[in-house]
Amino acid sequence: MQIRLSIEYDGTAYQGWQVQPEAPTVQAALERALATALRERVRVRGAGRTDAGVHACGQVAAVRVTRVPSDLPRLQKSLNALTPDDIAIREIALVDDGFDPRRDARSRVYEYRILNAPAPSPFWWRYAWHVPDALDAPAMHDAAKRLEGEHDFEAFRGADPVPVRSTVRRVLESAVHGDAPFVVFRIEATAFLKHMVRNLVGTLVEVGRGARPVDALAELLAARDRTRAGATAPAHGLVLVRVRY
Amino acid sequence: MQIRLSIEYDGTAYQGWQVQPEAPTVQAALERALATALRERVRVRGAGRTDAGVHACGQVAAVRVTRVPSDLPRLQKSLNALTPDDIAIREIALVDDGFDPRRDARSRVYEYRILNAPAPSPFWWRYAWHVPDALDAPAMHDAAKRLEGEHDFEAFRGADPVPVRSTVRRVLESAVHGDAPFVVFRIEATAFLKHMVRNLVGTLVEVGRGARPVDALAELLAARDRTRAGATAPAHGLVLVRVRY
Repeated sequence: MQIRLSIEYDGTAYQGWQVQPEAPTVQAALERALATALRERVRVRGAGRTDAGVHACGQVAAVRVTRVPSDLPRLQKSLNALTPDDIAIREIALVDDGFDPRRDARSRVYEYRILNAPAPSPFWWRYAWHVPDALDAPAMHDAAKRLEGEHDFEAFRGADPVPVRSTVRRVLESAVHGDAPFVVFRIEATAFLKHMVRNLVGTLVEVGRGARPVDALAELLAARDRTRAGATAPAHGLVLVRVRY
Repeated sequence: MQIRLSIEYDGTAYQGWQVQPEAPTVQAALERALATALRERVRVRGAGRTDAGVHACGQVAAVRVTRVPSDLPRLQKSLNALTPDDIAIREIALVDDGFDPRRDARSRVYEYRILNAPAPSPFWWRYAWHVPDALDAPAMHDAAKRLEGEHDFEAFRGADPVPVRSTVRRVLESAVHGDAPFVVFRIEATAFLKHMVRNLVGTLVEVGRGARPVDALAELLAARDRTRAGATAPAHGLVLVRVRY
């Protein structure tokens, strides 16, 4: 039997999701809490490996257990008491052994938050990229819309130590919502390349500043040239919002 | 000449507004940043002394300067670069020497945020009191409404080392907005007693849980008995939203 968890975390204090020696990670913190609550050593497998500083409000993970817990609401409560304040278990359920949180995922939804205001905010500096220059959110939305459909995202991939078979991804939704002071880029795709969302945002913000035309992203996709895209937007604006199955 | 500042801060890391020896305070952090930016030692006077852990998005302060800064937007930028990430200057203006941020204030607006959800939130643990039990927000609103007008708040005052002449305060607005997962108590009054908002919230939450009747607050006001009010709600849900002049 497996336990399926829906997890929310503030990634500020973590070196990302995945366990690393000598570095605080979300996976390691969860495994510690689960070991205490379940009284057995477990491995947590997540739907997506978020990078250092990236947040989640809908990460999904699975844990194989030898003893099936009888009282799930109580287990959730204990886990929330055992995890640090910046990690919370939102939902907990039993699923069969076949469930694979990464491979079974049909799509992932990410949001990237931009605080578009002259002054920084003490309440948002952990959760939004502060861009003081005026952004043209409707132009960013037009540019973002052109990402929908199947494309080769070679121009927007980061250097990934894990080799990828293909750089083609299918984008189900790509839109820019809101306006100053909050501009939010929301993207749903079957899967993402490393740094893909942050690289897209770097170029989208240049469109918003008027430094690139609205069709800049479409052109970069076609050119497949990594050297021509904008800078990688900082990690702390990014949130893994949902994983769909 | 004086500089008038509108200030936003996350109070989590501070022992409140007011300078204390050996403790980090918002006032001290601001005075350090101002001394560097203005190249003179200054004293910052705030409209309200927020307690340890209390936040602000509209604190107002004044600083007397001997040299009038010529470029205020540039001064604001330098200050925002010099202050820690959890303190920001939202507005800056010149005002004459007569301005007293505390005495000239006609009213203060506070909000108290309650996260009313089964699980805690990694994004709100610094900014909202997590109450997992179901709250009846409309009942809380009815109870809160009865605080409007002039009343003796003796039953809701905290032990204040600074003696107060009177415990009578005039409440201009008192309301509970929203519903689970966010219940927000908003109160505007000419002035507040120490811990007054947090003591009101402690009792309001008992009304929301059904443990006290809707007229509990009105009765406590009339009885003027500090021992009968609910517990003091934690500091981290409280935000000084605005000071009106």
